[in-house]
Amino acid sequence: MKDLLTTLENRRTIREFTEEKIDEETIQKILDALMHSPTSMGLQQASLIRITDPMKKKEIAKVGNQEYIERVPELFIFIADHYRNFRLIRDNGRNYDTNSNVDIFLQGFTDAVILASNMVSVVESMDLGAFFIGSILNDTEKMIEILNLPKLTFPVVGVGFGHPNQNPQIKPKMPANLRVFENSYTYFENYKDKFKDYDEEMTTYYDLRDANRRVDSFSNQVYTKTMKSSPKRNEFLEIARKNSYKL
Amino acid sequence: MKDLLTTLENRRTIREFTEEKIDEETIQKILDALMHSPTSMGLQQASLIRITDPMKKKEIAKVGNQEYIERVPELFIFIADHYRNFRLIRDNGRNYDTNSNVDIFLQGFTDAVILASNMVSVVESMDLGAFFIGSILNDTEKMIEILNLPKLTFPVVGVGFGHPNQNPQIKPKMPANLRVFENSYTYFENYKDKFKDYDEEMTTYYDLRDANRRVDSFSNQVYTKTMKSSPKRNEFLEIARKNSYKL
Repeated sequence: MKDLLTTLENRRTIREFTEEKIDEETIQKILDALMHSPTSMGLQQASLIRITDPMKKKEIAKVGNQEYIERVPELFIFIADHYRNFRLIRDNGRNYDTNSNVDIFLQGFTDAVILASNMVSVVESMDLGAFFIGSILNDTEKMIEILNLPKLTFPVVGVGFGHPNQNPQIKPKMPANLRVFENSYTYFENYKDKFKDYDEEMTTYYDLRDANRRVDSFSNQVYTKTMKSSPKRNEFLEIARKNSYKL
Repeated sequence: MKDLLTTLENRRTIREFTEEKIDEETIQKILDALMHSPTSMGLQQASLIRITDPMKKKEIAKVGNQEYIERVPELFIFIADHYRNFRLIRDNGRNYDTNSNVDIFLQGFTDAVILASNMVSVVESMDLGAFFIGSILNDTEKMIEILNLPKLTFPVVGVGFGHPNQNPQIKPKMPANLRVFENSYTYFENYKDKFKDYDEEMTTYYDLRDANRRVDSFSNQVYTKTMKSSPKRNEFLEIARKNSYKL
């Protein structure tokens, strides 16, 4: 296994995989290790759903509008899960009442992201390739249906992984001096000039998803990508409320 | 450095540290590597604020109601940051308008958690000790004031780390069969029985925070901890709205 510093320094999102399966012993070892992940107040308010059913993979690929999800060897969906603790309280004869609020909701959301993040880092350390799936939130209600989720749960993010069958460039990211500040938030005078070098660096990157064409500057990407947010993704809080969260 | 599987398998939250500083070269190496972390749509909508000012550490310790925050050698606060991209759009003469919605807010929240999670995993791989700080959300408005945060930013989580000066037990976590399901959510018939073993295991754990006393069963912890959620922590969405998010 690579150490995590080396893993991060060399990480690329991998979306295409060989046919080679990952053995069950390795999967179990990864999952057992993930259980030790940090968790808000020790309450472990998140769960994983491993998708092995090809029909369900297909449905999830459709929600995500990313056909490669259908072909990924290993697919996991991470959910905020307060149903388990609700049942644990109720089955012990107590009343679970006031605690499905925004505080507890975000704790579960955070727990789910930490688990997903650790899964990606672990598998990348093992020289496997992985991708995050934020696009499961394109249609949260459909995901709830596909996964048969109870009240007080919520899909947060997905992770796919396998043996890499592509070798993309490392995507340029902002340098630390644009993202790490000391003691107070740092306001730059002119963001256009400040991002000139990074904008330029980005245009040297070839995105394999986009027919190997060079990509746009970061400044242009920020504009076009944040403008095309889909209406359904903004129903997130309403759907969480439908699923019994008091937000 | 330990590999990440070994790191996770042996991880404990560390809250007490020696006086030994971590050299700046190491800090910079960690931060540079973190910049490669996965990020929603490549938009890098999160930032880090390193707290070196002892007065600010003291104020944050007060917000978190955890005095050891004041003494931690390295302290970082992770924020959802859409101000940077807003400025980047505006300073390029375009209109940032419809995009400070719940979708983009949660992307930034997720980015911040991934960065924090990777920081914890990296430093733990280096045999340093770390703790997460969810309690900065006890008083989000105060955190915004301490960090001088602009609109379209939001504190998410903190991380403290240093050279460990305590050697706690590994805290028992739920086994994978209670948290990892296949294809559909798994409903257990009786959660009380199902958690019997884990409840018992938990009572063999000694929490150093609690005068070295044994801790309560998990089932009891779930009940008492979720009941004491503070009212201020539930103002999260209102405060985000005040900070210009359209939630």
